[in-house]
Amino acid sequence: MGSKYPESLRISLPFWALILEGAFILVFFFFTSYETPSKKLELLKLYPAAFQDINVMVVLGLGFFKAFLRRYAWSSVAFNFFTLALGVQWAIILEGFLFSFSSEKIIINIHSLILGTMSAMSVLISSGATLGKVNLLQMIVMTLLEITVFQGTKKFNQYFLKGHEEMSMMHIHVFGAYFGMAANWCLSWSVPNEAKEKERTTTTSSLFTTLGILFMWIFWPTFNSALLKYSSEKEAAVYNTYYALAVSAVVAMSFSAATHSDGKISMTHVHRAMLAGGVAVGVATNLIQTPWIAMVLGFLGGMISFLGSKYLSGCFTRVIELHDTCEVHSTFGLPGLLGGLTYILLETEQASWTNSSMVGFQILLSAGCLSLFIAMGLAGGILTGLILSFNMWKPPPPAKYFDDQAFWEFPHLAVGF
Amino acid sequence: MGSKYPESLRISLPFWALILEGAFILVFFFFTSYETPSKKLELLKLYPAAFQDINVMVVLGLGFFKAFLRRYAWSSVAFNFFTLALGVQWAIILEGFLFSFSSEKIIINIHSLILGTMSAMSVLISSGATLGKVNLLQMIVMTLLEITVFQGTKKFNQYFLKGHEEMSMMHIHVFGAYFGMAANWCLSWSVPNEAKEKERTTTTSSLFTTLGILFMWIFWPTFNSALLKYSSEKEAAVYNTYYALAVSAVVAMSFSAATHSDGKISMTHVHRAMLAGGVAVGVATNLIQTPWIAMVLGFLGGMISFLGSKYLSGCFTRVIELHDTCEVHSTFGLPGLLGGLTYILLETEQASWTNSSMVGFQILLSAGCLSLFIAMGLAGGILTGLILSFNMWKPPPPAKYFDDQAFWEFPHLAVGF
Amino acid sequence: MGSKYPESLRISLPFWALILEGAFILVFFFFTSYETPSKKLELLKLYPAAFQDINVMVVLGLGFFKAFLRRYAWSSVAFNFFTLALGVQWAIILEGFLFSFSSEKIIINIHSLILGTMSAMSVLISSGATLGKVNLLQMIVMTLLEITVFQGTKKFNQYFLKGHEEMSMMHIHVFGAYFGMAANWCLSWSVPNEAKEKERTTTTSSLFTTLGILFMWIFWPTFNSALLKYSSEKEAAVYNTYYALAVSAVVAMSFSAATHSDGKISMTHVHRAMLAGGVAVGVATNLIQTPWIAMVLGFLGGMISFLGSKYLSGCFTRVIELHDTCEVHSTFGLPGLLGGLTYILLETEQASWTNSSMVGFQILLSAGCLSLFIAMGLAGGILTGLILSFNMWKPPPPAKYFDDQAFWEFPHLAVGF
Repeated sequence: MGSKYPESLRISLPFWALILEGAFILVFFFFTSYETPSKKLELLKLYPAAFQDINVMVVLGLGFFKAFLRRYAWSSVAFNFFTLALGVQWAIILEGFLFSFSSEKIIINIHSLILGTMSAMSVLISSGATLGKVNLLQMIVMTLLEITVFQGTKKFNQYFLKGHEEMSMMHIHVFGAYFGMAANWCLSWSVPNEAKEKERTTTTSSLFTTLGILFMWIFWPTFNSALLKYSSEKEAAVYNTYYALAVSAVVAMSFSAATHSDGKISMTHVHRAMLAGGVAVGVATNLIQTPWIAMVLGFLGGMISFLGSKYLSGCFTRVIELHDTCEVHSTFGLPGLLGGLTYILLETEQASWTNSSMVGFQILLSAGCLSLFIAMGLAGGILTGLILSFNMWKPPPPAKYFDDQAFWEFPHLAVGF
Repeated sequence: MGSKYPESLRISLPFWALILEGAFILVFFFFTSYETPSKKLELLKLYPAAFQDINVMVVLGLGFFKAFLRRYAWSSVAFNFFTLALGVQWAIILEGFLFSFSSEKIIINIHSLILGTMSAMSVLISSGATLGKVNLLQMIVMTLLEITVFQGTKKFNQYFLKGHEEMSMMHIHVFGAYFGMAANWCLSWSVPNEAKEKERTTTTSSLFTTLGILFMWIFWPTFNSALLKYSSEKEAAVYNTYYALAVSAVVAMSFSAATHSDGKISMTHVHRAMLAGGVAVGVATNLIQTPWIAMVLGFLGGMISFLGSKYLSGCFTRVIELHDTCEVHSTFGLPGLLGGLTYILLETEQASWTNSSMVGFQILLSAGCLSLFIAMGLAGGILTGLILSFNMWKPPPPAKYFDDQAFWEFPHLAVGF
Repeated sequence: MGSKYPESLRISLPFWALILEGAFILVFFFFTSYETPSKKLELLKLYPAAFQDINVMVVLGLGFFKAFLRRYAWSSVAFNFFTLALGVQWAIILEGFLFSFSSEKIIINIHSLILGTMSAMSVLISSGATLGKVNLLQMIVMTLLEITVFQGTKKFNQYFLKGHEEMSMMHIHVFGAYFGMAANWCLSWSVPNEAKEKERTTTTSSLFTTLGILFMWIFWPTFNSALLKYSSEKEAAVYNTYYALAVSAVVAMSFSAATHSDGKISMTHVHRAMLAGGVAVGVATNLIQTPWIAMVLGFLGGMISFLGSKYLSGCFTRVIELHDTCEVHSTFGLPGLLGGLTYILLETEQASWTNSSMVGFQILLSAGCLSLFIAMGLAGGILTGLILSFNMWKPPPPAKYFDDQAFWEFPHLAVGF
């Protein structure tokens, strides 16, 4: 405990957070209004059926997903929540200006809340990679930058590549994962031993992570189906996601047992791979009309996600000194990539039946769309990482990584589990 | 551990609880029946969309909200749950006799379950103030008295002041907070050092509290919209509540960092202030037609709730020896007051446009309604506190405050986290 | 720690799990297809209103319900989840072949997912009895066998005894409890002291169990109403279940205080008895048209469930050496039995009014149906227990019962809470 705690954010954090919040209120004052109640049944259907589920996923699911570090559970949950509360507002503003700005006002309805929450999820994914290594002020900066880049990419994709809203949104996993990785790479110095000792899990904190992941597992079908327009599409998305998730769970635990010398299962690897099926199936759900394809995708997703977590993560740390705390690359990146490639594959297969030149062009567009989100994720991430590494944000010193005590007042003596 | 444990409730607790339960069953036998299935779609809409959400809020939300004490987590969750299970039945009986008694029978439908659960919430709020200082028998007495006073006040308000059901219900936060404070004031002796040592939180128990608060945060829009009649009103209530809650969360953490000498955030203060926006916006949601007013209310709510928790609580303890364990005054009381005053302010502003004398009268009624709930809360609380201080309830001695061991059988040695 | 850890499942567990998963995918490939979107509104109603609730119950509810052992929380939650993920697939396949196989394809819709999840619940209940005493490979075998026996019994009941789907499904509690008990009886050697020391709970793990039980408590009305066809029936089932559950909770805590020498409440007994009302009312809900009958059933259910947990469990352990870890007999078996008997009683009472000979026959059928599920549960359980006791499954040695370390890789030193 010789090394000193990071510099106080007493002035800068509240200053920027409250200024931002004030600015958001002003923007809402001048530019937004509630929808006139013409489509009265909209809310009654979508609020309990989609918005609540997605909210549980991002607040409880992603929050507790990150709570596995033994001395960083408070920050994991609370910073995730803070980022969401701020990010949703910014996402709704950008969404409004970029996509639905007409007749001087941004219309606020349940759809814009759902889109805003989903867009804010990009930061929540990325901040898994930087977990424990940035302070709340850096997370605010990251929130603003990442959501801006994501909404910009989405606009570009929809405007130039004619991608659908729901397709764009499903690339959020790949985008968020690579953004987080890139930002992390610019940011992080090597983690000293003093911090490594804190980068461990405990039985209790791991159980909270399990709770978070199970929340996401349960409500993932809603996430994959929320933006689809027709109820037949929605229905297929729910079934596809459910089957893929069920297979992923089985595969994750089997592979984990198979690759350990004593046949023991690693909770961490299982956590990473359990959701892979949901992520993978998200992008391609439109083209999947039978359960077995979803199940195969769940199998492959669980497998590559597990392999990434088991072998690739360590490789990244050693070779390019990239330390991805939550292994978002394995959890969201690789399965998202698999989903994107599967979409292209399924399109190609359809094309072989129809012989239309339009379909070839369509495949090119899909490939472009996937590449676009990866490229913008990486580029935005590097830019953000560089900005975050400025000393003006008073980043915590590496010796104080993964430590709640750097940010929280502890009335009690014992910290951690 | 020299001081002795409180007297056993072995006879009195089961005796009163089972007598009550038996009496409730008799009342239900003679006076209730299920609704004849004329409005068949009622349930399919309200059961998943409103009742379940509110149930999660009161059972998991308020239950774990109180679980922060390091040796009192079991009692916090379980007594909250017991109070609810008993209180709902009593609330439905009173609700039936006072409001919907016609043709000899109380009609049971999903609406009466929602109203009953909401009314029972008054006790769950108040018992936050007395948390750890009363036994389960005292909580049964408090449940009966408080729900009676609340339902009586609601009846008076709706009958004489022509207040709407949903307005009355939204004053529950103010009522519950002041009831709890007043009861507490009559009840509590000063907390001895032996007990103070137990009035601390731990990392794990605080995480359970965070879980509870996040459940309430997620489902609060349902609470504020459940009783509204028109879907346009419901929709606006959902948006208002969501925006207010998002801003509160940001404000709470910012202020907490700003007021600590090292810029550290206090988890306790954040817990108190995170929900303020939802409470504040609840009363006035009918008159709020733009998101920015909700956001401003969330800002102010978060601010005064935080300030109350940081400065006012200690002041109460020192000056009038009032020890409010969960700080319900800051969490529910102050934001509820803000909401009530905002409602009057917004009515006044509307009146300045319409120039009608009726509106002036309406404002007077609103002010009367708010005052009525505060006054009845205080009066009922003092009465209840006096009754609870009788020795016949065998109250726990102050040295055994905040102690699960006084009430629970521990098969294991280690108590607490 | 002298005794050695169980043999590694490194080869056998992944081998069987992945082979099975592959086989399931093949069956889904050849024999299933999604429903053609004719009944478009089906999903929009049932997915959020029933499927999600039931999923929360089985994944979070039953998972954390079992998490009370101080060194076995990981296995409890994760193995429960694994069993469900695998079991649902097998249940849907069997359901399809036995009940809805027409024109060469099994139709997958939200209804089949709900039925599959419910059927898989039989294993989740039974595995409460064997909790901590079997490995994951044995649980896979048990999953396959138990779901097969349950679906077969259900088919027999519907085909020969003309039982309704929803009635059959409600006997799952009795079936699961007796199956688990019987399997356990064939399986278990006496638990040595070394393991008994691990068969204890802690404050934290017990709080996780409370969380699980409260999830089940909240969503139980959905479970009891999901399969009913008419909304009036659904409505009555929701109210009946809610009232029964509320009374059970009150009764459980009262009896627990009354039977302890110091008037202290036992958390374990409360956990067992809190859900009894929901279980008991499930079978008979069709015939209950007034809340008071449900409340009386909740009272009796809570009482016998508590008495079973307090006195009968120890008796089983001593007399017939049957060690039921989660006391599923008290939690699900006894209240289910009460529900079945109540159903017959209510039918008899109705018969005394109508004087029809058909009704007498109907009562005989109901009694037959209840007996059938108990008998098949016992028979299937004994068979399964015998198969599970083979050495080829490498069962854990009794000294390593209730121990996460036998199955999980622990990166940290401290195991348990």
